[in-house]
Amino acid sequence: MRNSPQRALSISATGRSIAILDQTLLPHAVRSIELDCAESVAEAIRTMRVRGAPLIGACAAFGLALALCRDASDSGLANALDFLAATRPTAVNLRWALERVANAVQKRPVSERAEAAWDEACRIAEEDAAINAAIGEHGLQRLQTLWQGKQARPGTAATVLQLMTHCNAGWLATVDWGTALAPIYKAHASGLPVHVWVSETRPRNQGALTAWELSQRGVPHTLIADNAAGWLMREGRVDAVIVGADRVTANGDVANKVGTYLKALAARANGIPFWVALPSPTFDASLASGAEIPIEMRAEEEVLQLKGRGAEAVNLFAPDCHALNPAFDVTPAELVSSYLTERGWFDSSEALLKGLQ
Amino acid sequence: MRNSPQRALSISATGRSIAILDQTLLPHAVRSIELDCAESVAEAIRTMRVRGAPLIGACAAFGLALALCRDASDSGLANALDFLAATRPTAVNLRWALERVANAVQKRPVSERAEAAWDEACRIAEEDAAINAAIGEHGLQRLQTLWQGKQARPGTAATVLQLMTHCNAGWLATVDWGTALAPIYKAHASGLPVHVWVSETRPRNQGALTAWELSQRGVPHTLIADNAAGWLMREGRVDAVIVGADRVTANGDVANKVGTYLKALAARANGIPFWVALPSPTFDASLASGAEIPIEMRAEEEVLQLKGRGAEAVNLFAPDCHALNPAFDVTPAELVSSYLTERGWFDSSEALLKGLQ
Repeated sequence: MRNSPQRALSISATGRSIAILDQTLLPHAVRSIELDCAESVAEAIRTMRVRGAPLIGACAAFGLALALCRDASDSGLANALDFLAATRPTAVNLRWALERVANAVQKRPVSERAEAAWDEACRIAEEDAAINAAIGEHGLQRLQTLWQGKQARPGTAATVLQLMTHCNAGWLATVDWGTALAPIYKAHASGLPVHVWVSETRPRNQGALTAWELSQRGVPHTLIADNAAGWLMREGRVDAVIVGADRVTANGDVANKVGTYLKALAARANGIPFWVALPSPTFDASLASGAEIPIEMRAEEEVLQLKGRGAEAVNLFAPDCHALNPAFDVTPAELVSSYLTERGWFDSSEALLKGLQ
Repeated sequence: MRNSPQRALSISATGRSIAILDQTLLPHAVRSIELDCAESVAEAIRTMRVRGAPLIGACAAFGLALALCRDASDSGLANALDFLAATRPTAVNLRWALERVANAVQKRPVSERAEAAWDEACRIAEEDAAINAAIGEHGLQRLQTLWQGKQARPGTAATVLQLMTHCNAGWLATVDWGTALAPIYKAHASGLPVHVWVSETRPRNQGALTAWELSQRGVPHTLIADNAAGWLMREGRVDAVIVGADRVTANGDVANKVGTYLKALAARANGIPFWVALPSPTFDASLASGAEIPIEMRAEEEVLQLKGRGAEAVNLFAPDCHALNPAFDVTPAELVSSYLTERGWFDSSEALLKGLQ
């Protein structure tokens, strides 16, 4: 049922490199690049050629394996771990994947470590695809219920199930399927008439990635400015909001792309279900609450650079104008209606903690 | 105390044209253009060379006067009214100003109408500047109170008063001073240590106009993506939110630039005052609630056009990707802490109705 030409991450048969789609070029150009050393993997993560918590995790795992091909000693392992973990702070999958690879190799003889690391990275990648497929199946069931409820509601006949998402939590953000988009793909394939409101997701416009993904699969969608999300919800034009996550803490707080919190507030104010899709590696029971999650601050140029007509991106603001550019925000658990995981739905943060711990 | 080189609207000594700053070029270029007929005024309003509810109203008034220079008959007046009123639907000041000019001239002989209309337009413009100066004075008092309260709060010493605004409600949006920014200019001039969070305001980036205005006057400010507003409020880094309005209905609902509603929700969730600054011509007692306000839908290209490097703006999305582009949203009265007008503060929608009717 996959129509897309490739996964977000593909593994070379030689076992010495991975290939990714350069997401900084999408949707302008579709270009695959090969990463054959830990440095190139780290650069790809840092510059957001690859992004999305699950995909970052899988890529970092391969990055560690590639580092061990060169130096698999204890100090080589420790250095590579530090180096790769420092690329981005907010998504917990990055550290989860690195620790998993490290645990799989550190008791082995140095000569076996590189191969064992590669095998573990492959397992992480395959598991991610399987986890997301399961998220899609569980999600589909609730979308079907939502659709049946909408059809049964008295008044005008429902013709479409209106979903809203934020940023990109599709197959581009994972090894395959996506998290928040997995149920939408499954619903579309099963004949459910879904339509997706895709928010632009400034400042890096990752909504364009979601629009591109949905176009590739023929899923009806409409792009909106982030600012329009509240208006749409107040107008009764959204049946559910579904987003991904970069880290979910023990109490159910959710770090996700900046702007998620505003959508959660609007959903709550308008009685709309607000769902967070997360694979279990995104759950971080070691943190009590979202207040403990490090929020990545990105370069102010991402906000300041307005592109002039016919010109390269330049800062058109006065020298005294600066920008603050948090990449993520925290949505408190009380605004989340339900959590969607590969183990099914959890309708409270307590149930999530019990189910994933 | 004005440092800016010019007003957003200046009136030629000949009485046969007005000059405006072309706001579609700002902050890239500062260029004044002359409007000498109703058609050029209508074009400037429609294409947003002039924007901001009060400025649109004043410009339309001059547009009507210019139309009457050519044809001051009853049918000429009626045609010009229709033509100018159709330029933009949401801001009520447009129709308010047109009706005021029409009322001032329609009982006069045809030969006197053009001059009487011009005089009335001049009065509207001068009154707008005076109204906004008064808004600034009333606003300043409450900012001083807020600052005293912040300084008196136990804990770390307050060094700055943190204000947030949305879109541009400064002197560029009015004949002079601005509405939401008038108190900020007065506060800065009086030595109050203000800092302004300026939200980008997609899709037309009018936050850039606010940043430019504030830079011209040396007011400290920081640009943020619209998505970051909730995060900042949740982090306790905003002391008050102050926005303008395009129309306020009898029950206190507020139509303003799309995204205002999301900021109001975040302010309420975090116990932050949410203030709406409005000159009395923005109050529309003829509408019971915000549900009756027509919301302008703008071209989808404003959202779809991502600018490629070195390229003209082009639609980089797939042909099946469309955009919905509401220019405004409605913030329900219950989210507004206080209304700031030229007649002072009103701390409830009932008080506003009583005070302005």
